Amino acid sequence: MSLLGVLGGMGPMATATFYRDLVRRTPARSDQEHIPVVIWSDGRVPDRSEALLGHGPSPLPQLVEGVKQLQAMGADLMAMPCNTAHAFLPGLRRATGADFVDIVRATVAATIERHPETRHVGVLGTRGTRIARLYETACSEVGLAVIQPTEHDQSALVDEAIRLVKGGGRLDHATRLVEQATRSLAAAGADVAVAACTEIPLAIGRATEVLPIVDSVECLADACIEACAPRCSTTTR
Amino acid sequence: MSLLGVLGGMGPMATATFYRDLVRRTPARSDQEHIPVVIWSDGRVPDRSEALLGHGPSPLPQLVEGVKQLQAMGADLMAMPCNTAHAFLPGLRRATGADFVDIVRATVAATIERHPETRHVGVLGTRGTRIARLYETACSEVGLAVIQPTEHDQSALVDEAIRLVKGGGRLDHATRLVEQATRSLAAAGADVAVAACTEIPLAIGRATEVLPIVDSVECLADACIEACAPRCSTTTR
Repeated sequence: MSLLGVLGGMGPMATATFYRDLVRRTPARSDQEHIPVVIWSDGRVPDRSEALLGHGPSPLPQLVEGVKQLQAMGADLMAMPCNTAHAFLPGLRRATGADFVDIVRATVAATIERHPETRHVGVLGTRGTRIARLYETACSEVGLAVIQPTEHDQSALVDEAIRLVKGGGRLDHATRLVEQATRSLAAAGADVAVAACTEIPLAIGRATEVLPIVDSVECLADACIEACAPRCSTTTR
Repeated sequence: MSLLGVLGGMGPMATATFYRDLVRRTPARSDQEHIPVVIWSDGRVPDRSEALLGHGPSPLPQLVEGVKQLQAMGADLMAMPCNTAHAFLPGLRRATGADFVDIVRATVAATIERHPETRHVGVLGTRGTRIARLYETACSEVGLAVIQPTEHDQSALVDEAIRLVKGGGRLDHATRLVEQATRSLAAAGADVAVAACTEIPLAIGRATEVLPIVDSVECLADACIEACAPRCSTTTR
């Protein structure tokens, strides 16, 4: 049976939400049927967006250290419930040789599966995810176009909502900002919006009335359940 | 800074709830201010109640192994979001030398703090917690009396509700069973009921209209935050 390693803490609430989604979405009837998981959740990993903007230290050394700790515990498959950290995935794979479930590819695959008519994908993510062009790359591989928020919306709505969720306060205000950003993406031609930062699903609110929202945390959980299925006694949905 | 080790998986949803409560109740304003945590969540630990009833293998060897894994990761303080597993706490402390936050004592202490007039504590827990007299021992230390459900209620209401929560289905039915068990405890003279199994808080429903309910998962989270405060940069509530 596989042991899933979760490199968490980016942020801690996103890790908690991911683990809850993983448990909730696993078709188990007893404790013993759930996927064995080890979670390394250290919020002290340097800010991923700051690093990608060239304003702070790289988180890569601490990410590598976290994965090595998980490998030492016996984890043979890794998940990182942080979209932005996936900018460092190539380096992380090279340094550790670990097998990862990729949250960005899992989210794009689920978008196509759930909304096959999609042409334009709106992205509600961090500035780091945007600079690293994570969704642009994954979407172009499957023929989808990406619509990013305007510079104003990114800064005043999306970045601010993420900051509020991480700060643990004013979720109601964060929710209004995400709703507003989603309306702008719809006006710009998006058919679907992806909650492309693991903090965004905590502030979706009524944005789902504006556009279908694909939640990257849920998509990562589903992809992990599927990836563990052949190795586990658990069957997938 | 302290690294909190969580021996989880008993059950997985209780572990997810505990971690969410820990994050939500920590007064942090950024990822970096949260308590660093490593969670070992393996649902394959043998059933604690079955072992205490003499019907199954002891979970102690796997619990010891889990704690040793957490110690190897650098965890210097342990939490187990499973009341019943605390029957094995003396053996676990002896085998590992680890420092634990005790969920039973944390819950009894919070009961007194929040409801100082309490004399009789109703216990909604597993059969294993009951046989091991975990709440009887902790309550007698502080002069409180325990009221357990009748044999019928334990089996038909409490055990069944826990089984339904662990199975991930029919939470609405589990909630009705917990409400009914709480009404019986109130009729038997309980001033307060403790949700003394980490699955019970997931099925509380309107039981709080019958008696004040003290949630052992929240109490464990608060005690961990308090225990980590002097070691962490985080300040407690």
